[in-house]
Amino acid sequence: MALNLLSNGFRVTVWNRTLSRCEELVEHGATVGETPAAVIQKCKYTVAMLSDPSAALSVVFDEHGVLEQITEGKGYIDMSTVDAETSSKISQAITEKGGHFLEAPVSGSKKPAEDGQLVILAAGEKTLYEEVIQIFDVLGKKSFFLGSVGNGAKLKLVVNMIMGSMMNGFAEGLVLAERSGLSQQTLLDVLDLGAIANPMFRLKGPAMINSSHAPNFPLKHQQKDMRLALALGDEQAVSMPVAAAANESFKKARSLGLGEEDFSAVYEVLKASLFNATA
Amino acid sequence: MALNLLSNGFRVTVWNRTLSRCEELVEHGATVGETPAAVIQKCKYTVAMLSDPSAALSVVFDEHGVLEQITEGKGYIDMSTVDAETSSKISQAITEKGGHFLEAPVSGSKKPAEDGQLVILAAGEKTLYEEVIQIFDVLGKKSFFLGSVGNGAKLKLVVNMIMGSMMNGFAEGLVLAERSGLSQQTLLDVLDLGAIANPMFRLKGPAMINSSHAPNFPLKHQQKDMRLALALGDEQAVSMPVAAAANESFKKARSLGLGEEDFSAVYEVLKASLFNATA
Amino acid sequence: MALNLLSNGFRVTVWNRTLSRCEELVEHGATVGETPAAVIQKCKYTVAMLSDPSAALSVVFDEHGVLEQITEGKGYIDMSTVDAETSSKISQAITEKGGHFLEAPVSGSKKPAEDGQLVILAAGEKTLYEEVIQIFDVLGKKSFFLGSVGNGAKLKLVVNMIMGSMMNGFAEGLVLAERSGLSQQTLLDVLDLGAIANPMFRLKGPAMINSSHAPNFPLKHQQKDMRLALALGDEQAVSMPVAAAANESFKKARSLGLGEEDFSAVYEVLKASLFNATA
Amino acid sequence: MALNLLSNGFRVTVWNRTLSRCEELVEHGATVGETPAAVIQKCKYTVAMLSDPSAALSVVFDEHGVLEQITEGKGYIDMSTVDAETSSKISQAITEKGGHFLEAPVSGSKKPAEDGQLVILAAGEKTLYEEVIQIFDVLGKKSFFLGSVGNGAKLKLVVNMIMGSMMNGFAEGLVLAERSGLSQQTLLDVLDLGAIANPMFRLKGPAMINSSHAPNFPLKHQQKDMRLALALGDEQAVSMPVAAAANESFKKARSLGLGEEDFSAVYEVLKASLFNATA
Repeated sequence: MALNLLSNGFRVTVWNRTLSRCEELVEHGATVGETPAAVIQKCKYTVAMLSDPSAALSVVFDEHGVLEQITEGKGYIDMSTVDAETSSKISQAITEKGGHFLEAPVSGSKKPAEDGQLVILAAGEKTLYEEVIQIFDVLGKKSFFLGSVGNGAKLKLVVNMIMGSMMNGFAEGLVLAERSGLSQQTLLDVLDLGAIANPMFRLKGPAMINSSHAPNFPLKHQQKDMRLALALGDEQAVSMPVAAAANESFKKARSLGLGEEDFSAVYEVLKASLFNATA
Repeated sequence: MALNLLSNGFRVTVWNRTLSRCEELVEHGATVGETPAAVIQKCKYTVAMLSDPSAALSVVFDEHGVLEQITEGKGYIDMSTVDAETSSKISQAITEKGGHFLEAPVSGSKKPAEDGQLVILAAGEKTLYEEVIQIFDVLGKKSFFLGSVGNGAKLKLVVNMIMGSMMNGFAEGLVLAERSGLSQQTLLDVLDLGAIANPMFRLKGPAMINSSHAPNFPLKHQQKDMRLALALGDEQAVSMPVAAAANESFKKARSLGLGEEDFSAVYEVLKASLFNATA
Repeated sequence: MALNLLSNGFRVTVWNRTLSRCEELVEHGATVGETPAAVIQKCKYTVAMLSDPSAALSVVFDEHGVLEQITEGKGYIDMSTVDAETSSKISQAITEKGGHFLEAPVSGSKKPAEDGQLVILAAGEKTLYEEVIQIFDVLGKKSFFLGSVGNGAKLKLVVNMIMGSMMNGFAEGLVLAERSGLSQQTLLDVLDLGAIANPMFRLKGPAMINSSHAPNFPLKHQQKDMRLALALGDEQAVSMPVAAAANESFKKARSLGLGEEDFSAVYEVLKASLFNATA
Repeated sequence: MALNLLSNGFRVTVWNRTLSRCEELVEHGATVGETPAAVIQKCKYTVAMLSDPSAALSVVFDEHGVLEQITEGKGYIDMSTVDAETSSKISQAITEKGGHFLEAPVSGSKKPAEDGQLVILAAGEKTLYEEVIQIFDVLGKKSFFLGSVGNGAKLKLVVNMIMGSMMNGFAEGLVLAERSGLSQQTLLDVLDLGAIANPMFRLKGPAMINSSHAPNFPLKHQQKDMRLALALGDEQAVSMPVAAAANESFKKARSLGLGEEDFSAVYEVLKASLFNATA
């Protein structure tokens, strides 16, 4: 992401907990900030991309963290995937110091990030969104402004919930095809020519029928997102029987030790039969 | 379909219960057969496309029907969507007379039929399939040979079952988005940029959020296909909890009088709340 | 059942496909009929208890069967458990000959039959029901008249569907207790003191926690009844998401080879975890 | 509960936020404590029964609360229904002061409390449990010691989860009976004679078929317990598809405004059809 900004003419100051990771960026023209606070001090807009909620909080609240230097006129954009609560906590701390805040989780993983093809789900201060849209245009193929802080996280949950239900429907269909004496490959071919053709079926289908589930999005994370989406539905009294059934199949997969595999491994739960069990 | 064959240089003899419907085809060079039997007599290969199982049976077994003229060396291809049992009955009768048979249900409706863009799921006699592949190449963008009679119907059920589960996951997500204060249109936009983007979401999403469910594929037919796919799974002891949950939501939609609407109307079941109920 | 009638002073003529099985009854005063037709000829009221639909049909329609002698003024009561269709077929044939018919499936198995403690679900001709109520009073602790032929079978399906859902809820609770570090025996004790205490939990609970599932009511039969109850619901557009989920768990049990075990064996599906899978 | 202790010869000191509520007890021989702290000071064992977690916490941690006087040698027994976290917090505070603690939620509501017929689910310090068993013998028909603090709450969740699934299975059966043209009253009668007869069906069934759902246990509380039981299952990777489906139906009931009705009101969700919707 930083490389994309550099190659598009932005001046970039970088920090990473492991400073050696900044070297390639320095070769391409980046300056190094020694601490998060140092980066904030030098820059008008700071973009963070961290691994999880605790890292996101640490970079803001710890010593030499973002809060020490954030002031009126500076913007902080957290593109990490965190829960709405973490996001709100950071938002509140930043804005109390006069700073401006956006949460901006992304849809897409390593390859789209390298190619500037992320989908960016921004929420928080609209003025800041408008100011940094050129940054988003470099990092992503499309960005959305979703309103209040928390909405980025929520929209991601909704998308992932739909994806989890689809994966279950797809996996059930693959198992049904096999047990009914149909070619699974033909099913994939037919699906790919019709109204429900989509990149996920195209990408994962051939691997699934070989029971190959190299983790792209680990099942335990998908199941966590299903649980959180169902919890969101519970708050709003939205009944979602299909998502609930899909969640239980993902939980079954976890109980069978498949949590670290790709979420397509729910296929193995559905496929399991006496023959598999004794094989 | 017949027009496509004519414009590709095939000689075509047509029959329709309502003979006036043949007029346009005659203008384009078709000959008329007065009865199904007459068509069989004149032609080496006959293609049938009928509205339902009873029509498919009637054309074969009734007076002046297919059976009266089918003989060694002639092929009969039924492209109607019928159940495996109907298909087997026709297959048996044809082959007992020395004729050759293919079932060849299609994926795709009116527009793809006109454009020669159907997907053809053929099953039955492989030699016949190979003989008529030029016909299928005109009628469809792709044809598959699936093995024994009945497999065409079964594969269609599997595809429609996956589609029904997907529609439910999608509808639940749209309702969750709305109740959580998110823009449904933005959800559609984000979905369309990601790994699960597909023509069905693209086509039906905008209509669904306006509660518009003009029937393209009536809900009662989708629910029937879910039921039949679950019955197929029951025979093979395949547990399909997500399809089962989706089926119950479609049944709920039927009980609310939505059976004639598009199958996207399951959205209304999920959306229904106190406010809707009292409105 | 015949012994109970004899010991209550009824005159009884018996027939069994294996005539030696009648010996004990003859010792207690029964007369033997050589064929079903012979029994009908001798008696005003004939009670049948047969193993399955094909036996029930055979006794009526085969040579020397019921139909040969049934006439105006005679009653035929079929207490076998058969589907509504079989029952209707028998009913129609009997009544066309001027005979009178009741279906009267029972709730309860061997022990209640011996003790005259069956629950009798009669349907068909009300006059006949009233005439034979003294017979039912001997055979069962309670009989019900349910209206048209078919209603006996349907009510049994509804009862068994509720039972199947309950068994799943119970089994899930037992697994959850164990995994949460609670004593399963204590759970059974607490359940038995509360509002949902029932004979099934009391009888099967202690065996289940020892993974003992000696077949009292085989799982494959319970699953078949769930399927038929769901099919009945489908006809009437009744959405039953809990029964549907329970049915899928029973199907999973079948796929794991547990179909011949007691229906409590669905517990093993829910319990299965990595440890079981690798044990 | 206090009256039962008094009439069994215990000396009782009482406190209630609304002191006038103590009057009847004083007439029967109780002494009044002015504050929770005052009660603790006077008594070796103190029993609390409070409406919810916040009341349970307030009585312990607020000014003049339990913590001010609890010391080595005194026991505090909280019989309120609270979550495991609240219970642990109270436990820790009490034991840090040298006091002894039991959580002891009960199964049973007003009537069983008056009659000394509660079922008591105690967890915490076993020695204290043994010391106060005479108190429990007066208040309940049976008490259980379940191990560590939190287990009382957990066991209650498991019981209520089973109850919630049963209620759904029962309600689905009642709706199916009605739509299939069977008498719901006969279904209740047949159920009550069989293996799944239980007090809940007996008590609530007749009211349900009249759509009467006077709240005994409000649906929103039942649904909350289902959600918490499912969350417990999520922690332990226990897949519970039937409980999950039941939970979604309860959520649907909440969305239709039935949260304050008895949990039997889930029947109305299942029953709802076009006719109801337009009535």
